[in-house]
Amino acid sequence: MMMKLTLSKVTGSARLGVITALAQSGGEKTLEVPGCLLYTRTGSPPHLTHDTLQNIAGVPPVTHLTLSTLAEHQEVLEEYKEGIGKFAGLSDTLLYCSINDPVTPNPPGYNTNKTVSVWGSGGRLELTPQRFVSLQGALRVDWIQCLCDGEAAADGCSRKRAKKSVDRSLSFLDECLKLMSENEALKQKVVIGAIEGGDLQEERLRSARETAKRPVGGFLLDGFQGGSGDPENKLNLIAAITAELPEDKPRFIHGIGRPDEVMDCIERGVDLFDSTFPYEVTERGCALSFTHQYQPDPETAGEPQRPVLDKKELINGEQTEDESEDAEDDRSSITAYEICLKEKRFREDFRPLLQGCACYCCRHHSRAYVHHLLISKELLAGILLMIHNFQQYFNFFRSVREAISDGKFQDLKEMIRKQAS
Amino acid sequence: MMMKLTLSKVTGSARLGVITALAQSGGEKTLEVPGCLLYTRTGSPPHLTHDTLQNIAGVPPVTHLTLSTLAEHQEVLEEYKEGIGKFAGLSDTLLYCSINDPVTPNPPGYNTNKTVSVWGSGGRLELTPQRFVSLQGALRVDWIQCLCDGEAAADGCSRKRAKKSVDRSLSFLDECLKLMSENEALKQKVVIGAIEGGDLQEERLRSARETAKRPVGGFLLDGFQGGSGDPENKLNLIAAITAELPEDKPRFIHGIGRPDEVMDCIERGVDLFDSTFPYEVTERGCALSFTHQYQPDPETAGEPQRPVLDKKELINGEQTEDESEDAEDDRSSITAYEICLKEKRFREDFRPLLQGCACYCCRHHSRAYVHHLLISKELLAGILLMIHNFQQYFNFFRSVREAISDGKFQDLKEMIRKQAS
Repeated sequence: MMMKLTLSKVTGSARLGVITALAQSGGEKTLEVPGCLLYTRTGSPPHLTHDTLQNIAGVPPVTHLTLSTLAEHQEVLEEYKEGIGKFAGLSDTLLYCSINDPVTPNPPGYNTNKTVSVWGSGGRLELTPQRFVSLQGALRVDWIQCLCDGEAAADGCSRKRAKKSVDRSLSFLDECLKLMSENEALKQKVVIGAIEGGDLQEERLRSARETAKRPVGGFLLDGFQGGSGDPENKLNLIAAITAELPEDKPRFIHGIGRPDEVMDCIERGVDLFDSTFPYEVTERGCALSFTHQYQPDPETAGEPQRPVLDKKELINGEQTEDESEDAEDDRSSITAYEICLKEKRFREDFRPLLQGCACYCCRHHSRAYVHHLLISKELLAGILLMIHNFQQYFNFFRSVREAISDGKFQDLKEMIRKQAS
Repeated sequence: MMMKLTLSKVTGSARLGVITALAQSGGEKTLEVPGCLLYTRTGSPPHLTHDTLQNIAGVPPVTHLTLSTLAEHQEVLEEYKEGIGKFAGLSDTLLYCSINDPVTPNPPGYNTNKTVSVWGSGGRLELTPQRFVSLQGALRVDWIQCLCDGEAAADGCSRKRAKKSVDRSLSFLDECLKLMSENEALKQKVVIGAIEGGDLQEERLRSARETAKRPVGGFLLDGFQGGSGDPENKLNLIAAITAELPEDKPRFIHGIGRPDEVMDCIERGVDLFDSTFPYEVTERGCALSFTHQYQPDPETAGEPQRPVLDKKELINGEQTEDESEDAEDDRSSITAYEICLKEKRFREDFRPLLQGCACYCCRHHSRAYVHHLLISKELLAGILLMIHNFQQYFNFFRSVREAISDGKFQDLKEMIRKQAS
């Protein structure tokens, strides 16, 4: 197993550390935690070429692929022989492959004792452990989320279903580990074991304990995405699970990305997140606008970063009434950490998306221009917003790490929490 | 008028030359003819950031904007004060503004003696010469297609309508020139006069003669887009018009972009084209694949460039049957100068889009990958195809200029023509 987590500081349960791993290419890569993975769809970061990606600061060295969108390409990749990384032009990065895309979850009810179903553009594919391992042989990624029964969500399911999800996932794990150990190309790969068990603490703990006994390189706390259920219960469950896991292996979580929720999870011992949140923000025409500078630069301390604090925008507050229909559609999902550039109040706002942001979009374009692109339905809007939102989100994780290092994690957490209200 | 065309060679009616012009920024820019303009939609090149654009070889120094997509932003631009170029981040380029987008023509029947209608995303806007000039005051471009009645197409209209289009356009031209001469910000701008007159040679010649008497910087042969009508008649009309125009001013045409049609127009004295063709090729999931190397490099002369000559593809020829539905939709518009990457035969084709192409896409990605992006409906497909198609198209015009310079225009024309059959 070519992966190692070294913790440098633990504050409460929040862990600061670095993962060292051997890349496909042979080189060594490091990933700092808490951190996030680079989100992609079918092998490419949304809206961006890899060239454009290089202009974004702080891009994570681990790229997140999803099996559901790649499974149907097995034949092509077998013919290609050099793996998905090279096929998709992702050569200089570590690759992690999760089963599903956190943005588009599978419909539940299809898993069996023998198979897990994933949905690609061509419909449903039933994966047995054999099929799963042969697919991984074609993909050739570095870190593999093991096949698991992820249908028992943390916001509730029957006791029986929760128990079954644990049993099945352990059995899939054993079978996959066995098949992989017999496969020359896969025996050195890092397997990430999924912790299942719905909302039942005893099942979650059994899943954690049993998974931790196997030769996995890390753990995925599965089934925590989705907004329903009591947040406090979920957080208690997460804390209970991580307390059961060995310290020296990273803990992943998917589908949780809002800055305040991320902080809550980090506080309970989670290390790695996906970057689907900035993607979702982009898709609804929004720009991340929250601040995570817990140690304000004295020179700019007076400058408000959040638009809600902004005088001009307060004056224009009444304009929220005459927004476009599009803005209305997505309104419910917009968080307090972003501004919606579709709103008419940005029509003549010639400031950058976020004051002080050094991203390509903020250096070259104004809110008014992005508003204009969105209203005209120009694809450049998505490109520019994706650049800004990725860079902001990657910077946020850097701030989190600095805050832990500086003993300021609680200050940053409070600062993030305040902006949500 | 800050624009000058210097011809260096004329072969038959095909003209080789260079336009020198002062840019907004104060610097001097040159544009070689025959050439094309950089197509944009609402101020941005489709699919691309300006950053990505810089990785494309041979990008024309003149950017083509369209009034129809910008007119409704007048208020914003007036408030902004610095013009559309800076607003859209297009600072280091000459700007040309045409009335309509050649890709999405206006519905006819709305023009009057006093107004010309354009359609933006918010619906129809009626432009009087006053409104037009005040709009140009907000846009601040370098070259302005003058307001004109462009509804009399070269593929046929009534004698009365053809005559009216000429009368109205001359009257709009006179009024706009007068209003612009009284406007400090606009008096130095270059006005491109539109030649109207439908398919009536006498009206076209009258339009050309009368327009040429006015202080315009160049001419637009308007109304030649669209596939209907006898091509030979249109070409005769174009030849008759250019024969009537002064030699020292450039002749523009819009909506004609197929390589063989471009060659026919250049042969009849047209200098400048738009680059909507590579955009349309991109939108239907295709890649330009024709060759314009009229002087084959002896080292690569044996290597076939066109996929149709390619052995592997001939073998796979039968696969055109099982194409995706999407491919079927656009099939009718696909020309012989491109390959459709949506076709299943590219599924395991790991070669670049075009052998020997030095564009970003061909250097980093395979046909199979672009096929996969198209089938998965990933936006990166459009980005990569746009990069390739722009670069190929810009290179094509460079080849045309070299061919005229080398006395090989007819060879290149024949080579392009052959690939269409």
